[in-house]
Amino acid sequence: MKDAVLKHVLVTGGLGFIGSNLALRLAGMGSEVTLIDSLIPEYGGNLFNIKGYENRVSVNIADIRDPHSMRYLVQGKDVLFNLAGQTSHMDSMKDPETDLQINCTSQLSILEACRKYNPSIKVVYASTRQIYGRPDYLPVDERHPLRPVDVNGINKMAGEWYHILYNNVYGLRASALRLTNTYGPRMRVKDARQTFLGVWIRLAVEERPFEVWGGEQLRDFTYVEDAVDAFLLAATNPAADGKIFNLGGHAPVSLSQLGAMVADLSKGASFQIREFPKERKAIDIGDYYADFSSISECLGWQPKVSLKDGLSRTMDYYRAFLPEYL
Amino acid sequence: MKDAVLKHVLVTGGLGFIGSNLALRLAGMGSEVTLIDSLIPEYGGNLFNIKGYENRVSVNIADIRDPHSMRYLVQGKDVLFNLAGQTSHMDSMKDPETDLQINCTSQLSILEACRKYNPSIKVVYASTRQIYGRPDYLPVDERHPLRPVDVNGINKMAGEWYHILYNNVYGLRASALRLTNTYGPRMRVKDARQTFLGVWIRLAVEERPFEVWGGEQLRDFTYVEDAVDAFLLAATNPAADGKIFNLGGHAPVSLSQLGAMVADLSKGASFQIREFPKERKAIDIGDYYADFSSISECLGWQPKVSLKDGLSRTMDYYRAFLPEYL
Repeated sequence: MKDAVLKHVLVTGGLGFIGSNLALRLAGMGSEVTLIDSLIPEYGGNLFNIKGYENRVSVNIADIRDPHSMRYLVQGKDVLFNLAGQTSHMDSMKDPETDLQINCTSQLSILEACRKYNPSIKVVYASTRQIYGRPDYLPVDERHPLRPVDVNGINKMAGEWYHILYNNVYGLRASALRLTNTYGPRMRVKDARQTFLGVWIRLAVEERPFEVWGGEQLRDFTYVEDAVDAFLLAATNPAADGKIFNLGGHAPVSLSQLGAMVADLSKGASFQIREFPKERKAIDIGDYYADFSSISECLGWQPKVSLKDGLSRTMDYYRAFLPEYL
Repeated sequence: MKDAVLKHVLVTGGLGFIGSNLALRLAGMGSEVTLIDSLIPEYGGNLFNIKGYENRVSVNIADIRDPHSMRYLVQGKDVLFNLAGQTSHMDSMKDPETDLQINCTSQLSILEACRKYNPSIKVVYASTRQIYGRPDYLPVDERHPLRPVDVNGINKMAGEWYHILYNNVYGLRASALRLTNTYGPRMRVKDARQTFLGVWIRLAVEERPFEVWGGEQLRDFTYVEDAVDAFLLAATNPAADGKIFNLGGHAPVSLSQLGAMVADLSKGASFQIREFPKERKAIDIGDYYADFSSISECLGWQPKVSLKDGLSRTMDYYRAFLPEYL
């Protein structure tokens, strides 16, 4: 393989949406990949995500909240793609303690395990644009103040900083990608727990109407293969170490434009604009799209897949495999 | 009493340095004060801190990590001064999990207890300048980016944001004060766990030589009675709700200037400049002093006690009571 640094790879959240896409790519490149996932039903893990690759990746069911398993599993690895997380904003408000355990406590214990048992490992952490809160300006670059509007955003902010701290103080090599809305094959579509777009796609594939809340908010979208590119670049280019990068997409679209694109790609789904529910409004961030020039300049990353192509590929995937995701 | 809002008051970390000074002031004003403290020997709590006030304040020994006790204790209170914390930067690196439990997990559970069992309570949180990390510019105002350089800074950042979030989303009234070096009677002087200045004062009172590490760093210092003023203003002025304020001091001084002041106030202590130990250098923030104009404008706060007066009062206190602090 080209990058010796990717010989022995660990992916937390490896049966989840982005983790599994990354794992399949790595397996195709010849990496020895171990996937850690707890398969919590409300989260993104799904064994079908590695269909056809069962003999080419190694699956280890474990919860990142279990420090003993993590201590063992980080050993002997070149790279840790650290993608396991609690991602639901609403859940973080209903059950802040669980969000904290997964997004703070476990992150710290994973980093401690790396520091003690594999200090030469490289770590790429999946962070989120949620930590910016409501933008002061658009597009949002990495210098934008961090003002998270929900418990998930606060905990992800801390989780990201632990990584950068361990890079700066202990010489562990770690970087963080602040993901925006990521979509594509293997995303959770059974409900809106991972992203609203998942359930739109499911309903559109089922030729059923779906609801767009609000509609005017601008957002940017990263196709999952583009996100995978970014993780690989961050792992293989030493220029990434200690850095935090935004990911982004092509031009931002409003949610009603996005709804229309999804409906157009279906055989007859329609959508309705609905007012934003009150309990969500309190933690909504309004318009958001990222300035991703930093990762472009530093690592040469660019999103390659247009939103239309990406949506089309995603809907093709769920036309073929939807029952595996319900 | 003047401020009915201060009738029933809870102080976490109430036997500690700032907490006890605040408690004595509140008791003197006629408040019914309950102090929560776990009296962990390495932390700041000391029963002698309330000497003479044993019958005027109510002491409840409990650990803020115990959600059941906290749930009960927040009930029926008008104000919670939330000062309990793990404050040692070095300890947070050696035992990050404990720092996280105290400064993140417990804060979230205290706020959940308030939200569920006493949503009309007002909370003033003791945050820290440590969350700014190494300053980009001086003096540091509240708009300065947050880039904590140790685990303690990351966890205090999260703890502060939980408070602001619960204010913004749930209508709890909460504010945060970012404290800089605070000093005065009742500080921990037995060692440098709370602040380097504590152990200088102890050694100076004992007429023994003390060490100044580095020496050139600029720092600002708040006398504890001035800090108490700020807590009371934040609790009683609704303009503080949802806000974060820096505290600060009179003109910044270098650590070697400060060392000379302490030595001058002693009867013969001398000090030596020593190179910064390597493991501390990694988490040192360099020069720091705060711009506190925001709290001046919003709440009318100003530091009143000069550094020289404050040091003199502090050393008088320890000349009288040093054995109680060893």
